[in-house]
Amino acid sequence: MFQNFEMTTRPENGGPRVSALRQAMAEIDCDAFLVPRADAHRGENVAPCDERLAWLTGFTGSAGMAAVTGDRAVVFVDGRYTLQVRAQTLADVFDYQNIPRDKLSAWLTAALPEGGRIGFDPWLHTDAEIGRLQKALGPGFDLVETANLVDQIWADRPAQPVEPIVVHPLEFAGDDSAAKRARLAEKLRADDIGATILSLPDSIAWLLNIRGSDIARTPVARAFAILNADASLRLFVTDTAAAGADLRAHLGDDITLAATADLLSDLDALRGRVALDRDTAPVALRNALSQAEIVWQRDPCIIPKAVKNTAELNGSRAAHLRDGAAMVEFLAWLDATAPGGALTEIDVATKLEAFRSKANGLRDISFETISGAGANGAIIHYRVTTETNAPLLPDSIYLVDSGGQYLDGTTDITRTIAIGTPPEGAARAYTLVLKGMIALSALRFPSELSGRDIDALARVALWQHGFDYDHGTGHGVGAYLGVHEGPISISRRSTEPLLPGMILSNEPGYYREGAFGIRIENLIVVEPPSTPEGGDREMLSFETLTFAPLDRRLIDASLMTGAEIAWLNAYHAETLARLADHVSIEAAAWLVEATRPI
Amino acid sequence: MFQNFEMTTRPENGGPRVSALRQAMAEIDCDAFLVPRADAHRGENVAPCDERLAWLTGFTGSAGMAAVTGDRAVVFVDGRYTLQVRAQTLADVFDYQNIPRDKLSAWLTAALPEGGRIGFDPWLHTDAEIGRLQKALGPGFDLVETANLVDQIWADRPAQPVEPIVVHPLEFAGDDSAAKRARLAEKLRADDIGATILSLPDSIAWLLNIRGSDIARTPVARAFAILNADASLRLFVTDTAAAGADLRAHLGDDITLAATADLLSDLDALRGRVALDRDTAPVALRNALSQAEIVWQRDPCIIPKAVKNTAELNGSRAAHLRDGAAMVEFLAWLDATAPGGALTEIDVATKLEAFRSKANGLRDISFETISGAGANGAIIHYRVTTETNAPLLPDSIYLVDSGGQYLDGTTDITRTIAIGTPPEGAARAYTLVLKGMIALSALRFPSELSGRDIDALARVALWQHGFDYDHGTGHGVGAYLGVHEGPISISRRSTEPLLPGMILSNEPGYYREGAFGIRIENLIVVEPPSTPEGGDREMLSFETLTFAPLDRRLIDASLMTGAEIAWLNAYHAETLARLADHVSIEAAAWLVEATRPI
Repeated sequence: MFQNFEMTTRPENGGPRVSALRQAMAEIDCDAFLVPRADAHRGENVAPCDERLAWLTGFTGSAGMAAVTGDRAVVFVDGRYTLQVRAQTLADVFDYQNIPRDKLSAWLTAALPEGGRIGFDPWLHTDAEIGRLQKALGPGFDLVETANLVDQIWADRPAQPVEPIVVHPLEFAGDDSAAKRARLAEKLRADDIGATILSLPDSIAWLLNIRGSDIARTPVARAFAILNADASLRLFVTDTAAAGADLRAHLGDDITLAATADLLSDLDALRGRVALDRDTAPVALRNALSQAEIVWQRDPCIIPKAVKNTAELNGSRAAHLRDGAAMVEFLAWLDATAPGGALTEIDVATKLEAFRSKANGLRDISFETISGAGANGAIIHYRVTTETNAPLLPDSIYLVDSGGQYLDGTTDITRTIAIGTPPEGAARAYTLVLKGMIALSALRFPSELSGRDIDALARVALWQHGFDYDHGTGHGVGAYLGVHEGPISISRRSTEPLLPGMILSNEPGYYREGAFGIRIENLIVVEPPSTPEGGDREMLSFETLTFAPLDRRLIDASLMTGAEIAWLNAYHAETLARLADHVSIEAAAWLVEATRPI
Repeated sequence: MFQNFEMTTRPENGGPRVSALRQAMAEIDCDAFLVPRADAHRGENVAPCDERLAWLTGFTGSAGMAAVTGDRAVVFVDGRYTLQVRAQTLADVFDYQNIPRDKLSAWLTAALPEGGRIGFDPWLHTDAEIGRLQKALGPGFDLVETANLVDQIWADRPAQPVEPIVVHPLEFAGDDSAAKRARLAEKLRADDIGATILSLPDSIAWLLNIRGSDIARTPVARAFAILNADASLRLFVTDTAAAGADLRAHLGDDITLAATADLLSDLDALRGRVALDRDTAPVALRNALSQAEIVWQRDPCIIPKAVKNTAELNGSRAAHLRDGAAMVEFLAWLDATAPGGALTEIDVATKLEAFRSKANGLRDISFETISGAGANGAIIHYRVTTETNAPLLPDSIYLVDSGGQYLDGTTDITRTIAIGTPPEGAARAYTLVLKGMIALSALRFPSELSGRDIDALARVALWQHGFDYDHGTGHGVGAYLGVHEGPISISRRSTEPLLPGMILSNEPGYYREGAFGIRIENLIVVEPPSTPEGGDREMLSFETLTFAPLDRRLIDASLMTGAEIAWLNAYHAETLARLADHVSIEAAAWLVEATRPI
């Protein structure tokens, strides 16, 4: 199941393709054209037909934006990708700019003559995004909606995926689609809104209790929907052939099926107040609502989807136990095999995916496994390729961040493992990272706090030693949906309140460039408020979902408090109790040792 | 020096005074009039002539707003004052509303007919405030600038204070006014701005190295200023007679003196781009700039004033040692005297002020002392009066929050003290509060964080036990200026970056209603970034300015980590080392005992 997806792009393609794009621009009198790494559904993963940025430039990262003018071209990427973009594209074709430090508007105003016309595909940008860009550009530049010029020159562009759409059983969804739609519709009526437009595939998957396979690693169909205030819904999919008889029976009479080709004309027919999400809906949808009064409102599925119900939480717990058992088999195998010195990053990732694939209900891995040996572990978003594939050397540490998409839940776990004697400083850093992970795991906190309010708690042990990590502490996770699910996160950027039932990752880290990387990640779920014994206020807390041993060989107990050691020992005892009966005899013996109290 | 300032207001005055105000409103065809607890300078403390809210309603709290219509009247107060406002005003005259839960706009729209005219004094409201209110009211209501109608009916309104303005010696200010003005003027020129208008008295005091006595507890003059882009400045004071020969010599030729009565006509004469602070400048100033192009810009003194220079920090350290010595004398006296059972809250506050008044350079206390015995300690903003004055009973705890205005610095310290055997639960709560205080004291943290990002660190120990406190963790403190100084704070509301040199309070607490209150407060200053040994990133940290023992009898060491105990013992050792030679022999003996390691 391990696949290291690479577009068939080579750096030297960039020049000719940019030239062809310029010709297409000239034909419609455009001075610039924008090529975001985006589809119409704001997906972190996109279908091959939407990999326009990779096709044009060679850059295959998961976020970025190219802009091309008559004589210049640029790729904007964030800090994760500053090295990768240079490796995958040619510097004599592209400028490189950094998000968020550099501004697209500044690059465009410098590169274009006053009055310049900047073309964009209205399916690939939101109203909020275009509004901000136009404001930053000022009145001297026009943003012009055009057909997608890359599609015009991309001769062998892959077809749009038309994978089967399947029913997500009520046993795992926990809540009937009709009931979900009724609640959202009630809110629409209260707001005097006739319909709301959905363009996020995971919102639609959640609302209708369906899943798909159009996108790698995320079990969704590329779909749109119109939810009406009477709770009826019209579902738009690329090809209605993707819906079999089972699905049609599941959807019932209140849900009608249509082809996405009909979406715009259906939107055009809407009258009255229609809700649209300014931050997620493509500009094309806004335009199509020509006879409606648009009410900008957040996609109404976002919060109820993030707040998991009992069945979703039980499913996640069950999926995590099977995933944990696979991790234990893997870790036991790794401990037995790695000291031999013959393993590479790809070997290990492949083996992990093999262990995981034996677990019941696995449908896919939930993202490309990060398998980083030694210095590669310090590259936060490292994806091993045949070129970078490094051996797991003796006396090093190895970082593996991976997860599964199970029918009953989505997992995401990172473990950092000692191979032989850990390098100088690794145990101290590991222990500080662990302290941060424990701080959130054991935290109680009042309602109405957001990720920003608690992010420091995961970092303070590192800060005391002059360390930190340049990524968020945690992200939302779906219920057999996106492994990165909005809107919540634990980071300085997140001011969205944490609500009971929300699943998050808890993954502080430490990265010593050129030496090693450390990250420890468990998934946690916000528990309902309760008053601690002897306390006078209700507090939220986190339940840990992930169970797999934390490498005792990397722990310096002298840096830990009694409460932290107690948490660790209890976690290990729980890990042993939950998993021992579900792993092989060899792995169980290893597990007993790995979970001994410290 | 202790004074329990009370307006000569009685609840029963409210009715007749509101009636008189209604008559004044009718004469100018106003349907409502706003009476904020405010002066033209956004002061937390105001001169008696500006105590309009207290005069009208009877309510003497430090924040609030009354609104009066033809048949209704309301007082808006925040959570601190919900009890006090009911005690000081009559419920048959006033409605009571809560800030921020209730909205003035909602009250006004419910109380007024469509088209209602709401009068306000343009000297007492900012443009931002009126803009927000008008937006919330919608187009159906008019906010109308009027003369102050309270002043028209307040027969014996006190005169405006005209206290001497004095030079603040360079030894304490550390930086020449000309140099400060040159830096601000350079920025004005860079922004193509001809002048900036200052209306905050502490900004002007900082910029000109002057101090005044117009306002209780804050050593400033009620002044305005126009700073020009050539670094010249025009200073407006109530009466130029307040400026003696010394001051005039200090101000020099680049600073001209004028009466505030001339301010509006001088503003009217300004042309070109003029900067004004939308959040602090009265509407009256905006109106007067009728021929200028107003550039909304934060008062340029706010950040440089908050970032203390070396002389200011050295002054603060010195002031804190003298203040700490006074505290040690006081605490030793209290330990010797309180068990006798004859002391009241007023006795103790008076005695503390007597000890403090012996310290060199004391000019005033920095705010009304909070002296709370037993259950009164649980009232967060308690101010003892002759009616509430409670005895310090055996087997209770006592909270005292106080500070001094010294020529070389401003202090603010809270200590909670056991009298006999502490009540059940007090030691645990004290220790949890102490852990929060230590967490910030010992913190290292990266640049660019704000108070919001670290506030949780002071609370997490309490949260774990189901406790919390309903106030910020810390506020900015001036250098012989306001004891509450903007713009920084440590709270969920503060997103202003913490910069080296900023002085803050660090004062977590715990309040058990009807039983006891605990707060521990030290002042701290942000230290320049440095890289911890063995670390790889620069971190900010805090230096503690306040030295006075923390009550060992209230500490449950079993709840503390080794690092916390080490911090406490080091703090106590430092307190002993710094203060032992500066207190009486009796107090020194007490100090040795009070600072023994635990």
